Amino acid sequence: MLDAVVFNDAGLVPAIAQDEKSKAILMVAWMNREALQETVETGRAVYFSRSRQKLWRKGEDSGHVQHVKEIRLDCDGDVILMQIEQVGGIACHTGRAHCFFRQLDENNEWQTTEAVLKPPGEIYGTD
Amino acid sequence: MLDAVVFNDAGLVPAIAQDEKSKAILMVAWMNREALQETVETGRAVYFSRSRQKLWRKGEDSGHVQHVKEIRLDCDGDVILMQIEQVGGIACHTGRAHCFFRQLDENNEWQTTEAVLKPPGEIYGTD
Repeated sequence: MLDAVVFNDAGLVPAIAQDEKSKAILMVAWMNREALQETVETGRAVYFSRSRQKLWRKGEDSGHVQHVKEIRLDCDGDVILMQIEQVGGIACHTGRAHCFFRQLDENNEWQTTEAVLKPPGEIYGTD
Repeated sequence: MLDAVVFNDAGLVPAIAQDEKSKAILMVAWMNREALQETVETGRAVYFSRSRQKLWRKGEDSGHVQHVKEIRLDCDGDVILMQIEQVGGIACHTGRAHCFFRQLDENNEWQTTEAVLKPPGEIYGTD
Protein backbone atom coordinates (compact mmCIF):
# COMPACT_ATOMS: atom_id res chain seq x y z
CA MET A 1 0.00 0.00 0.00
CA LEU A 2 2.66 2.48 1.07
CA ASP A 3 4.81 1.67 -1.96
CA ALA A 4 2.67 3.95 -4.12
CA VAL A 5 3.19 6.93 -1.81
CA VAL A 6 6.01 9.30 -2.73
CA PHE A 7 7.57 10.81 0.37
CA ASN A 8 9.76 13.91 -0.02
CA ASP A 9 13.43 14.21 0.89
CA ALA A 10 12.44 14.68 4.53
CA GLY A 11 10.38 11.48 4.41
CA LEU A 12 7.08 13.36 4.51
CA VAL A 13 3.92 13.65 2.42
CA PRO A 14 1.27 16.38 2.82
CA ALA A 15 -2.15 15.14 3.96
CA ILE A 16 -5.36 17.10 3.44
CA ALA A 17 -8.21 16.58 5.91
CA GLN A 18 -11.57 17.29 4.28
CA ASP A 19 -14.81 17.21 6.25
CA GLU A 20 -16.78 14.27 4.85
CA LYS A 21 -20.10 16.10 5.17
CA SER A 22 -19.49 19.83 4.59
CA LYS A 23 -16.54 19.16 2.23
CA ALA A 24 -14.68 22.04 3.89
CA ILE A 25 -10.92 21.68 4.02
CA LEU A 26 -10.23 21.33 7.72
CA MET A 27 -6.43 21.39 7.71
CA VAL A 28 -3.29 20.26 5.96
CA ALA A 29 -0.45 18.60 7.84
CA TRP A 30 2.36 16.16 7.09
CA MET A 31 2.74 12.42 7.53
CA ASN A 32 5.79 10.23 7.55
CA ARG A 33 5.54 6.54 6.71
CA GLU A 34 4.83 5.58 10.31
CA ALA A 35 2.08 8.19 10.69
CA LEU A 36 0.36 7.03 7.52
CA GLN A 37 0.64 3.40 8.55
CA GLU A 38 -0.88 4.14 11.96
CA THR A 39 -3.63 6.24 10.35
CA VAL A 40 -4.59 3.32 8.10
CA GLU A 41 -4.45 0.80 10.93
CA THR A 42 -6.35 2.79 13.55
CA GLY A 43 -8.76 4.82 11.40
CA ARG A 44 -7.70 7.98 13.21
CA ALA A 45 -5.58 10.70 11.65
CA VAL A 46 -1.96 10.63 12.79
CA TYR A 47 0.43 13.26 11.48
CA PHE A 48 4.13 13.99 11.90
CA SER A 49 4.83 17.24 13.68
CA ARG A 50 7.68 19.00 11.92
CA SER A 51 8.21 21.39 14.84
CA ARG A 52 8.25 18.65 17.49
CA GLN A 53 9.75 16.01 15.16
CA LYS A 54 7.46 13.28 16.40
CA LEU A 55 4.15 11.58 15.70
CA TRP A 56 1.16 13.79 16.32
CA ARG A 57 -1.97 11.82 17.12
CA LYS A 58 -4.54 14.46 16.28
CA GLY A 59 -6.79 15.07 19.27
CA GLU A 60 -4.57 13.42 21.88
CA ASP A 61 -4.49 16.66 23.90
CA SER A 62 -7.65 18.41 22.72
CA GLY A 63 -9.93 15.41 22.31
CA HIS A 64 -10.61 16.63 18.77
CA VAL A 65 -9.89 13.29 17.17
CA GLN A 66 -10.31 12.84 13.41
CA HIS A 67 -12.04 9.64 12.29
CA VAL A 68 -10.83 8.75 8.81
CA LYS A 69 -13.61 7.66 6.45
CA GLU A 70 -11.66 7.48 3.19
CA ILE A 71 -8.06 7.83 2.03
CA ARG A 72 -7.09 8.92 -1.48
CA LEU A 73 -3.80 9.45 -3.26
CA ASP A 74 -3.17 11.86 -6.12
CA CYS A 75 -1.89 11.09 -9.61
CA ASP A 76 1.79 11.45 -8.82
CA GLY A 77 1.46 9.87 -5.41
CA ASP A 78 2.76 12.78 -3.36
CA VAL A 79 -0.42 14.11 -1.71
CA ILE A 80 -2.86 12.27 0.58
CA LEU A 81 -6.53 13.29 0.82
CA MET A 82 -8.69 12.07 3.71
CA GLN A 83 -12.42 12.33 4.32
CA ILE A 84 -12.80 13.11 8.01
CA GLU A 85 -15.38 13.07 10.76
CA GLN A 86 -14.08 15.80 13.05
CA VAL A 87 -14.92 15.14 16.70
CA GLY A 88 -15.91 18.35 18.47
CA GLY A 89 -16.20 20.25 15.20
CA ILE A 90 -12.90 22.02 15.78
CA ALA A 91 -9.88 21.11 13.65
CA CYS A 92 -7.71 24.21 14.10
CA HIS A 93 -5.49 24.86 17.11
CA THR A 94 -6.87 28.42 17.12
CA GLY A 95 -10.25 27.00 18.16
CA ARG A 96 -11.87 27.41 14.78
CA ALA A 97 -13.71 24.77 12.74
CA HIS A 98 -10.92 24.75 10.16
CA CYS A 99 -7.52 26.32 9.52
CA PHE A 100 -8.37 28.27 6.35
CA PHE A 101 -10.04 31.22 8.08
CA ARG A 102 -8.17 33.96 6.21
CA GLN A 103 -9.68 35.04 2.90
CA LEU A 104 -8.13 37.47 0.43
CA ASP A 105 -10.43 40.46 -0.14
CA GLU A 106 -10.72 42.83 -3.11
CA ASN A 107 -7.98 45.04 -1.64
CA ASN A 108 -5.63 42.06 -1.40
CA GLU A 109 -5.84 42.02 2.38
CA TRP A 110 -6.44 38.86 4.41
CA GLN A 111 -9.74 38.97 6.27
CA THR A 112 -10.61 36.56 9.07
CA THR A 113 -13.91 34.92 8.21
CA GLU A 114 -14.40 32.25 10.84
CA ALA A 115 -15.24 32.67 14.51
CA VAL A 116 -13.33 31.06 17.35
CA LEU A 117 -15.69 28.37 18.65
CA LYS A 118 -13.64 27.67 21.75
CA PRO A 119 -10.60 29.58 23.03
CA PRO A 120 -7.36 27.58 22.72
CA GLY A 121 -6.82 27.91 26.47
CA GLU A 122 -9.99 25.96 27.07
CA ILE A 123 -9.20 23.36 24.43
CA TYR A 124 -5.75 22.60 25.75
CA GLY A 125 -6.50 23.25 29.41
CA THR A 126 -3.89 25.98 29.80
CA ASP A 127 -6.30 28.58 31.20
CA MET B 1 -0.55 40.55 0.95
CA LEU B 2 2.28 38.12 0.29
CA ASP B 3 3.94 38.99 3.58
CA ALA B 4 1.57 36.65 5.43
CA VAL B 5 2.49 33.69 3.22
CA VAL B 6 5.21 31.39 4.52
CA PHE B 7 7.22 29.91 1.66
CA ASN B 8 9.42 26.87 2.37
CA ASP B 9 13.20 26.68 1.95
CA ALA B 10 12.73 26.18 -1.79
CA GLY B 11 10.59 29.33 -1.95
CA LEU B 12 7.37 27.37 -2.50
CA VAL B 13 3.97 26.99 -0.87
CA PRO B 14 1.48 24.20 -1.62
CA ALA B 15 -1.78 25.34 -3.22
CA ILE B 16 -4.98 23.31 -3.15
CA ALA B 17 -7.47 23.76 -5.98
CA GLN B 18 -11.03 22.96 -4.83
CA ASP B 19 -13.96 22.96 -7.23
CA GLU B 20 -16.17 25.84 -6.13
CA LYS B 21 -19.36 23.93 -6.90
CA SER B 22 -18.74 20.23 -6.22
CA LYS B 23 -16.16 20.97 -3.48
CA ALA B 24 -14.02 18.14 -4.87
CA ILE B 25 -10.29 18.59 -4.47
CA LEU B 26 -9.11 18.96 -8.05
CA MET B 27 -5.35 18.99 -7.51
CA VAL B 28 -2.51 20.21 -5.35
CA ALA B 29 0.51 21.95 -6.83
CA TRP B 30 3.13 24.44 -5.70
CA MET B 31 3.47 28.21 -6.08
CA ASN B 32 6.45 30.45 -5.70
CA ARG B 33 5.98 34.15 -4.89
CA GLU B 34 5.74 35.10 -8.57
CA ALA B 35 3.14 32.41 -9.31
CA LEU B 36 0.97 33.52 -6.41
CA GLN B 37 1.29 37.16 -7.41
CA GLU B 38 0.27 36.39 -10.99
CA THR B 39 -2.61 34.21 -9.77
CA VAL B 40 -3.95 37.10 -7.69
CA GLU B 41 -3.48 39.65 -10.47
CA THR B 42 -4.94 37.61 -13.33
CA GLY B 43 -7.57 35.51 -11.53
CA ARG B 44 -6.19 32.39 -13.18
CA ALA B 45 -4.24 29.72 -11.32
CA VAL B 46 -0.50 29.89 -11.95
CA TYR B 47 1.75 27.31 -10.32
CA PHE B 48 5.48 26.69 -10.23
CA SER B 49 6.52 23.44 -11.89
CA ARG B 50 9.15 21.76 -9.76
CA SER B 51 10.13 19.39 -12.57
CA ARG B 52 10.47 22.14 -15.19
CA GLN B 53 11.56 24.81 -12.68
CA LYS B 54 9.39 27.50 -14.23
CA LEU B 55 5.97 29.10 -13.99
CA TRP B 56 3.15 26.81 -15.02
CA ARG B 57 0.12 28.73 -16.22
CA LYS B 58 -2.48 26.00 -15.76
CA GLY B 59 -4.27 25.35 -19.03
CA GLU B 60 -1.76 27.07 -21.30
CA ASP B 61 -1.32 23.85 -23.29
CA SER B 62 -4.56 22.00 -22.56
CA GLY B 63 -6.95 24.94 -22.47
CA HIS B 64 -8.08 23.68 -19.07
CA VAL B 65 -7.67 27.04 -17.38
CA GLN B 66 -8.62 27.46 -13.72
CA HIS B 67 -10.57 30.60 -12.85
CA VAL B 68 -9.87 31.52 -9.24
CA LYS B 69 -12.99 32.55 -7.29
CA GLU B 70 -11.52 32.76 -3.80
CA ILE B 71 -8.12 32.50 -2.14
CA ARG B 72 -7.60 31.43 1.47
CA LEU B 73 -4.57 30.98 3.70
CA ASP B 74 -4.28 28.58 6.62
CA CYS B 75 -3.51 29.40 10.25
CA ASP B 76 0.25 29.13 9.98
CA GLY B 77 0.36 30.71 6.53
CA ASP B 78 2.00 27.83 4.70
CA VAL B 79 -0.89 26.42 2.64
CA ILE B 80 -3.05 28.19 0.03
CA LEU B 81 -6.62 27.08 -0.73
CA MET B 82 -8.38 28.25 -3.88
CA GLN B 83 -11.98 27.89 -5.01
CA ILE B 84 -11.83 27.12 -8.71
CA GLU B 85 -14.01 27.10 -11.79
CA GLN B 86 -12.35 24.41 -13.88
CA VAL B 87 -12.67 25.06 -17.61
CA GLY B 88 -13.33 21.81 -19.50
CA GLY B 89 -14.02 19.90 -16.30
CA ILE B 90 -10.61 18.23 -16.40
CA ALA B 91 -7.96 19.21 -13.87
CA CYS B 92 -5.66 16.18 -14.01
CA HIS B 93 -3.02 15.60 -16.69
CA THR B 94 -4.29 11.99 -16.88
CA GLY B 95 -7.54 13.32 -18.40
CA ARG B 96 -9.60 12.87 -15.25
CA ALA B 97 -11.76 15.45 -13.50
CA HIS B 98 -9.36 15.54 -10.55
CA CYS B 99 -6.05 14.05 -9.45
CA PHE B 100 -7.28 12.07 -6.42
CA PHE B 101 -8.61 9.10 -8.37
CA ARG B 102 -6.93 6.40 -6.25
CA GLN B 103 -8.85 5.27 -3.18
CA LEU B 104 -7.61 2.86 -0.52
CA ASP B 105 -9.87 -0.18 -0.27
CA GLU B 106 -10.51 -2.53 2.66
CA ASN B 107 -7.54 -4.68 1.59
CA ASN B 108 -5.25 -1.66 1.67
CA GLU B 109 -4.95 -1.61 -2.11
CA TRP B 110 -5.35 1.54 -4.22
CA GLN B 111 -8.37 1.35 -6.51
CA THR B 112 -8.90 3.73 -9.41
CA THR B 113 -12.33 5.29 -9.01
CA GLU B 114 -12.52 7.96 -11.70
CA ALA B 115 -12.83 7.53 -15.45
CA VAL B 116 -10.59 9.19 -18.01
CA LEU B 117 -12.82 11.82 -19.61
CA LYS B 118 -10.39 12.60 -22.40
CA PRO B 119 -7.13 10.77 -23.25
CA PRO B 120 -4.03 12.85 -22.49
CA GLY B 121 -2.94 12.56 -26.12
CA GLU B 122 -6.07 14.43 -27.17
CA ILE B 123 -5.72 17.03 -24.45
CA TYR B 124 -2.14 17.90 -25.27
CA GLY B 125 -2.34 17.28 -29.00
CA THR B 126 0.37 14.63 -29.02
CA ASP B 127 -1.74 12.00 -30.78
